[in-house]
Amino acid sequence: MTIKVAIAGARGRMGQEAVHTIMKDQNMELVSVLDYKEIGETLADTKLFPQTFTVPIFMDLTELSSKTKPDVLVDLTSPESVYQHTREALELGIRPVVGTTGFSDEELKELSAYSAEHGIGCIIAPNFAIGAVLMMKFAEQAAKYLPDIEIIEMHHDQKLDAPSGTAMKTASLIADHRKTHNQGHPKEKETIAGARGANYDGMRIHSVRLPGLVAHQQVLLGGDGQLLTIRHDSFNRGSFMSGVALSINKVMELENLVYGLENIID
Amino acid sequence: MTIKVAIAGARGRMGQEAVHTIMKDQNMELVSVLDYKEIGETLADTKLFPQTFTVPIFMDLTELSSKTKPDVLVDLTSPESVYQHTREALELGIRPVVGTTGFSDEELKELSAYSAEHGIGCIIAPNFAIGAVLMMKFAEQAAKYLPDIEIIEMHHDQKLDAPSGTAMKTASLIADHRKTHNQGHPKEKETIAGARGANYDGMRIHSVRLPGLVAHQQVLLGGDGQLLTIRHDSFNRGSFMSGVALSINKVMELENLVYGLENIID
Amino acid sequence: MTIKVAIAGARGRMGQEAVHTIMKDQNMELVSVLDYKEIGETLADTKLFPQTFTVPIFMDLTELSSKTKPDVLVDLTSPESVYQHTREALELGIRPVVGTTGFSDEELKELSAYSAEHGIGCIIAPNFAIGAVLMMKFAEQAAKYLPDIEIIEMHHDQKLDAPSGTAMKTASLIADHRKTHNQGHPKEKETIAGARGANYDGMRIHSVRLPGLVAHQQVLLGGDGQLLTIRHDSFNRGSFMSGVALSINKVMELENLVYGLENIID
Amino acid sequence: MTIKVAIAGARGRMGQEAVHTIMKDQNMELVSVLDYKEIGETLADTKLFPQTFTVPIFMDLTELSSKTKPDVLVDLTSPESVYQHTREALELGIRPVVGTTGFSDEELKELSAYSAEHGIGCIIAPNFAIGAVLMMKFAEQAAKYLPDIEIIEMHHDQKLDAPSGTAMKTASLIADHRKTHNQGHPKEKETIAGARGANYDGMRIHSVRLPGLVAHQQVLLGGDGQLLTIRHDSFNRGSFMSGVALSINKVMELENLVYGLENIID
Repeated sequence: MTIKVAIAGARGRMGQEAVHTIMKDQNMELVSVLDYKEIGETLADTKLFPQTFTVPIFMDLTELSSKTKPDVLVDLTSPESVYQHTREALELGIRPVVGTTGFSDEELKELSAYSAEHGIGCIIAPNFAIGAVLMMKFAEQAAKYLPDIEIIEMHHDQKLDAPSGTAMKTASLIADHRKTHNQGHPKEKETIAGARGANYDGMRIHSVRLPGLVAHQQVLLGGDGQLLTIRHDSFNRGSFMSGVALSINKVMELENLVYGLENIID
Repeated sequence: MTIKVAIAGARGRMGQEAVHTIMKDQNMELVSVLDYKEIGETLADTKLFPQTFTVPIFMDLTELSSKTKPDVLVDLTSPESVYQHTREALELGIRPVVGTTGFSDEELKELSAYSAEHGIGCIIAPNFAIGAVLMMKFAEQAAKYLPDIEIIEMHHDQKLDAPSGTAMKTASLIADHRKTHNQGHPKEKETIAGARGANYDGMRIHSVRLPGLVAHQQVLLGGDGQLLTIRHDSFNRGSFMSGVALSINKVMELENLVYGLENIID
Repeated sequence: MTIKVAIAGARGRMGQEAVHTIMKDQNMELVSVLDYKEIGETLADTKLFPQTFTVPIFMDLTELSSKTKPDVLVDLTSPESVYQHTREALELGIRPVVGTTGFSDEELKELSAYSAEHGIGCIIAPNFAIGAVLMMKFAEQAAKYLPDIEIIEMHHDQKLDAPSGTAMKTASLIADHRKTHNQGHPKEKETIAGARGANYDGMRIHSVRLPGLVAHQQVLLGGDGQLLTIRHDSFNRGSFMSGVALSINKVMELENLVYGLENIID
Repeated sequence: MTIKVAIAGARGRMGQEAVHTIMKDQNMELVSVLDYKEIGETLADTKLFPQTFTVPIFMDLTELSSKTKPDVLVDLTSPESVYQHTREALELGIRPVVGTTGFSDEELKELSAYSAEHGIGCIIAPNFAIGAVLMMKFAEQAAKYLPDIEIIEMHHDQKLDAPSGTAMKTASLIADHRKTHNQGHPKEKETIAGARGANYDGMRIHSVRLPGLVAHQQVLLGGDGQLLTIRHDSFNRGSFMSGVALSINKVMELENLVYGLENIID
């Protein structure tokens, strides 16, 4: 069975990639696009896609739904509009796959209740990079057996915050399952401040920033005579697409809302 | 509760490490040692351990059992004697933790039946390096989502066989859960034979041999714009000890035989 | 002093990058562009660059020279036209910086003689990725002290040939300075053919091909109790730009032809 | 020609390794051992070596010299006695190869003058791990072309000081040849202090401490679209032996004192 997909946010960087991903997937059909700006009648009119991409664009979700009957709405828009889209999609019986973090706890609770009550699947995933999600999941599992852990995350030198969001998320997931314990020698000392990195619940996080780098992270777990390293390299935006495709397939089987790609991976 | 442990094979390299591991563990007590040679009355007499290691040595398991009442027998002897020890231990109500591969299928079946019938835990683990076992487990899980996989294993240059046993085991576990597919470009060609490595069910395995190396393996899983790497470095024999300690703890909770460390890890 | 630069091949992928690199460099000025097709009067007319890029385009090198007086001609065109351009540039007193391999031995000899005779610098570099060139240079130097070497090169799975050109070049450079010796155990055996990789003069080369990868290589040099690894990751075409900029600066100081970036690095 | 070697400090950990290294080297002969304690007549008497190691032990260097006529004295003793040995060796015409840091500037100057005046080679090397020395040398060379640099050093968790001495030495060598510049984004901020590591002249150093690790360092040099990584792994004490053997060979060709293995490597 072919899954009929609509996309909101097709003009954005992620959105453009998603259009190509869905067009190439033999189990999916891109039936329509939702946009809040008048940008033409079909994707081809936007000049961002080949002339053969004649998928129709709608500015109203209800009209889009009645005319193109999508099974799934992939939403890659900005946080402002995303709650509205998601709520409407659920009410129209379209399964949302959402790639942003812009929900309040209350909104999530409400969407979750609606989704479960009506038995309509919904996936909200702040991180679609399946490799990164697997890295976090494995680090969390391994921490039980090898609880001495350091994280090295490496990004391009235009990144402002350190540690990265993914590093913080990884450490937080590990911390939930690991007894707090300080690592390194109790008497260790830094001859230059910062050498031992950021202390997160006893774990150390090191942030490397260099031109050329894209987005990389390794989790190092040490034990007697051994080291287990789980590393993820994200070389470009394409890394998110396997997660989008997986979510489109999975949301068809769900009858409730799932938050986080890690919870649809087994 | 302190777990009372006996060791068979304390004079071997692994055995010596295990003695130290158990002596240092606050939840365990090394109560006795089983040996088939007359080597003295206590570990100290063997000259392989400090004078303070006054753990008694027995040549008969029944006597050892009645005098020192161990909960667990850690068996690190050679394959010849191991079935006998394991069977006897189960009959005496001592839970075996065995670190060798020398069992026939029939022996395993018999031990398994006995263990289940009498509700006595038993662990048989060909590989006690917990990091290596986690690496294999994670590679197997990740293969579902990132099915393009190559394995690079690296060992010292005195190793005779390539690929290594661990690499073969890893590939075999992945193959069980992955649809076969050939990797690389269908038209790729080797200008020097062997460049693309060993072909195992479509996966490629590369064996590096260099002086200085110990035992290392990385599993590389590629996907759109990303790479997930799971790597294990074994720097010395100590890498097996966390698995020994884990098994001693776990076997106390079991009421049947478990084969392979991967099956006591969750 | 600002270096005046002209570019041939500005519309190509490398050429476009080079335009941006030179425009951003405070010590350089992009004064003109050479093209063999009528594509407009300035770079802006090509629609490939911002409207502010008003650098004039010429179809004749002599006219370009007399009107814009460049110090250096960066040639990123295809092999067919490159010899002609280089010869003409030298005759006009413009220093060529050429990034292609399309010269016959005879042509190289002739250009070299002309360059030396007239004291005009010229750089021809088949590989502008400075990091890759450093990797090769260091591997060659280190091989003297750590002669046991394996090379792992990793590329996207659309690459046809294995090993890669860079791996072959690296092995060849090392072989020139290293006594041949077979590595690994004399009695080692492959249980699956190809496990030990391609044999190049005793060294082993392993070619990994996975989706997601770009262009990566590591040279591993093993010795007693140690491993030295020299690794280069090329994440995108930008990796060539530091070599272009370096060459533009260096060619100003030369009075002869230098072939290969490795020979202007000290 | 076989090089006749004497060792001071043969009972120490490094010394024992050195004895084996020299015994196995076909171009060298271990002719005698210097010790300050009465430990027997030959190495075999110390019980630290096989019964076949009948190399004679002396407590006086003059006697050792006249009876066994070594070309080279390898000194692996503690800092206290090393100056005395080195001075005496030079006076007896024996070339010293010394592996400690315990010299004052004045002593070094004096030894250097004596060595040059009498044309007797002498090598003093605080770090005999040839791979580590090459790593530092290459990092220093590459910094000229890729000046954005971060260092990650990784050691076992019993190490007290961070950053490691080798990391400090590496950064210092680079800083001598690199214009100071701050790395990362000017507005970058740490949400947890220490994330960005130790700041050494603009470079960042990160110190990882985990059980299982031995001594590892990687120098990362980033540039447009690329990353060059130079990594050294020291797995055990054997890593020093290639440097000892190299020094014994090199000191035969020298007619002055050389400080640091990096200065005999070309």
